[in-house]
Amino acid sequence: MNTIRLHKEHLQQFISAEELSDIRKEVLAAKQTLVSCTGKGNDFLGWIDLPQDLSPEIIKSIKNDVSALAPKASLFVVIGIGGSYLGARAVIEALQSEFASMENNSHPYVIYAGHTLSEDYYHQLLQMLDTHDYALAVISKSGTTTEPAVAFRIIKAHLEQKYGKSAAAERIIAITDARRGALHDIAKQEGYRSYVIPDNVGGRFSVLTPVGLLPIAMAGYDIEKLIKGACDMREICTTSDTLEENPALMYAAIRNILYRKGRKVEILENFVPNLKYISEWWKQLYGESEGKEGKGILPHSLSFTTDLHSMGQYVQEGERLMFETVISVAQPRHQVTIPSDPQNLDGINYLLGKTLTEINHNAELGTILAHVDGGVPVLRIEIPTVDEYVLGQLIYFFEFACGVSGYMLGVNPFDQPGVEAYKKNMFRLLGKPGYEK
Amino acid sequence: MNTIRLHKEHLQQFISAEELSDIRKEVLAAKQTLVSCTGKGNDFLGWIDLPQDLSPEIIKSIKNDVSALAPKASLFVVIGIGGSYLGARAVIEALQSEFASMENNSHPYVIYAGHTLSEDYYHQLLQMLDTHDYALAVISKSGTTTEPAVAFRIIKAHLEQKYGKSAAAERIIAITDARRGALHDIAKQEGYRSYVIPDNVGGRFSVLTPVGLLPIAMAGYDIEKLIKGACDMREICTTSDTLEENPALMYAAIRNILYRKGRKVEILENFVPNLKYISEWWKQLYGESEGKEGKGILPHSLSFTTDLHSMGQYVQEGERLMFETVISVAQPRHQVTIPSDPQNLDGINYLLGKTLTEINHNAELGTILAHVDGGVPVLRIEIPTVDEYVLGQLIYFFEFACGVSGYMLGVNPFDQPGVEAYKKNMFRLLGKPGYEK
Repeated sequence: MNTIRLHKEHLQQFISAEELSDIRKEVLAAKQTLVSCTGKGNDFLGWIDLPQDLSPEIIKSIKNDVSALAPKASLFVVIGIGGSYLGARAVIEALQSEFASMENNSHPYVIYAGHTLSEDYYHQLLQMLDTHDYALAVISKSGTTTEPAVAFRIIKAHLEQKYGKSAAAERIIAITDARRGALHDIAKQEGYRSYVIPDNVGGRFSVLTPVGLLPIAMAGYDIEKLIKGACDMREICTTSDTLEENPALMYAAIRNILYRKGRKVEILENFVPNLKYISEWWKQLYGESEGKEGKGILPHSLSFTTDLHSMGQYVQEGERLMFETVISVAQPRHQVTIPSDPQNLDGINYLLGKTLTEINHNAELGTILAHVDGGVPVLRIEIPTVDEYVLGQLIYFFEFACGVSGYMLGVNPFDQPGVEAYKKNMFRLLGKPGYEK
Repeated sequence: MNTIRLHKEHLQQFISAEELSDIRKEVLAAKQTLVSCTGKGNDFLGWIDLPQDLSPEIIKSIKNDVSALAPKASLFVVIGIGGSYLGARAVIEALQSEFASMENNSHPYVIYAGHTLSEDYYHQLLQMLDTHDYALAVISKSGTTTEPAVAFRIIKAHLEQKYGKSAAAERIIAITDARRGALHDIAKQEGYRSYVIPDNVGGRFSVLTPVGLLPIAMAGYDIEKLIKGACDMREICTTSDTLEENPALMYAAIRNILYRKGRKVEILENFVPNLKYISEWWKQLYGESEGKEGKGILPHSLSFTTDLHSMGQYVQEGERLMFETVISVAQPRHQVTIPSDPQNLDGINYLLGKTLTEINHNAELGTILAHVDGGVPVLRIEIPTVDEYVLGQLIYFFEFACGVSGYMLGVNPFDQPGVEAYKKNMFRLLGKPGYEK
């Protein structure tokens, strides 16, 4: 099998066959609303057909940019916030070594900016950039979002001082609106290479546009395989009306049943730490799509087994607020042998002959059984391995399920009105022209 | 001011003066139970007097180990899980540059193992260790906890192959039980330098023992200042019975009032990303201490402003399950200027003349006001800056408040019975002798 699969055998005591069958109509109606573009937020559904509609010219252009910049940059700074960096970071961190920053890589190591206002962070960043060759992408629809705008001013000045204005311009790629906006205008004026963020794709659904694809390719990963994975999952998600065959529909069904039964928190879990940023990307996708009108499941995430020695106690015996969704990786990419020790003082000789992954899978099953015993429903999403093709599937699966789930909840899954609230206050406090009152 | 302070002005519409005054007796009773060592789990209260009781010989010995190992190791591997690494990691990541792994440092860069069973992780780790000089600490009370035991076997074999058995032994420090256990026996047999984990200090309260102090010192930070901060906070926490003067009592009071009013999730937030692992340490401290008997506040954490463009929508408009606790840093350690740009295409010239920290503080206030408007209580913990002294205060503050809060909840805050559940299942599944049934 090389397709992601849902396993719901650990939900049996929490969800009956009848409940699943009762909700089927509702799931299919939500799916129909989504694919027919007749629901709320239907001007932001460009992501549905993105994987198959992506033009070969964009792929080619991205590859050219990688060829041009990779040889002269050991670092690539991605300036963006929220959906402008989380998708790329999720894919890159899933694929690269945990120690990539300390190794010599064939491609630039990607670092991030424009996602914080920490003064210490920018000091540390500039100090480090002093001694490294770098290039950058600045990603913003408008170009006026405070965090990336501030970061771009600071880093652009550093880059121009380091290489001179015209050589610096060759190291900058803008990803922005097709026709208007501050970043569009700056890119035009300065002659930056640039890519378009499609009008009909919101930030949290943008990883399969140049927003995600350029940084992922720059880090050395195969974006065509990523897109192929998304295309194949699109085929399943959009065509099948059978819950048992369409994992996105089943996921949407299960989480809505559990939510209606009072499970107001979903914990996304992994047993391999390189999926940590997949959880961060997922939190934005679901939190921002569903958390409105006083409704929505609160997204949470944990990394096991380490967090079994942290939040494990709570999940086992605390308030029964939550359900868990485990991303389970069937095959690792590498092998490591546990050395034998005749003395066996540590008592782990009984593990000899088992792979680490076998031990990890038993930790996972042991955890699931313990938590179910403790009264927590657990859904398992099995992925064949961690590679570009599988990540493409996983991304599309989560996106499609999110659209269906949001419509089932009765909200517009494609807006984010609440994000403006802090900005308005901040602008007023900072005395931004037009916001003084 | 150089002491951490609680600000509760944004709680006014959620907690009345009467509610606070009503709970006062209960808070003081819990404090009394704690300091008189008369409550549940009172054989694990060694942490209360740790900061002042720490022997100068231990500090001296740690400094000697740092002097001996730092010149010959660019990396220091800390092998431990849960409380055996989270405290050290929280302090080190708060103090070091975000880009420390990419810089030449005067002290070893600390990396972590024994906190995962991911096969890919160990493959990547060994590959990286091939090309770096390193030393390690292995931290385990028993020496038989699966994750660190497996990691130690793997890395010990690598180290011995790299340097030879006797030179490898000089690069290994064991932190374990004083008298018994597998790691104690291995250390004795192999002649490792070793430190004791006190019997009366649980893992999640152990950061001010050698468990935390050795790695923190190895990374180049001043553990005496850290301890001084904890001592000074201990004085305040243990002596003052006035909620307004004792931040630990006030924090315990507020979170219990909010919990009883249905706020079942606490989100710990920062506006500077280097505090991320303070949140991870805090999650273990509170989740493991309080999440039992079907009770306890579910710990969650976010990093702002980045997560305002992710989970911000949910906090603003989703289910009203939560309250927020913001760790607010008054002073940065460094300064960065925003360059001016006469064209002002990005429209941020109105920020010129303001420091980044000033902008960040206004983002923080703007966020708090927006969330309070949205119906979320917000508590603010102001810390003067991020240094060893302040972190020592913060650690002790959270620990003391946790003890008081746990007693108010009616649980034993110092055990973790639920952590055994997954282990028992895993041992059975793996066929560990004695667990086959």
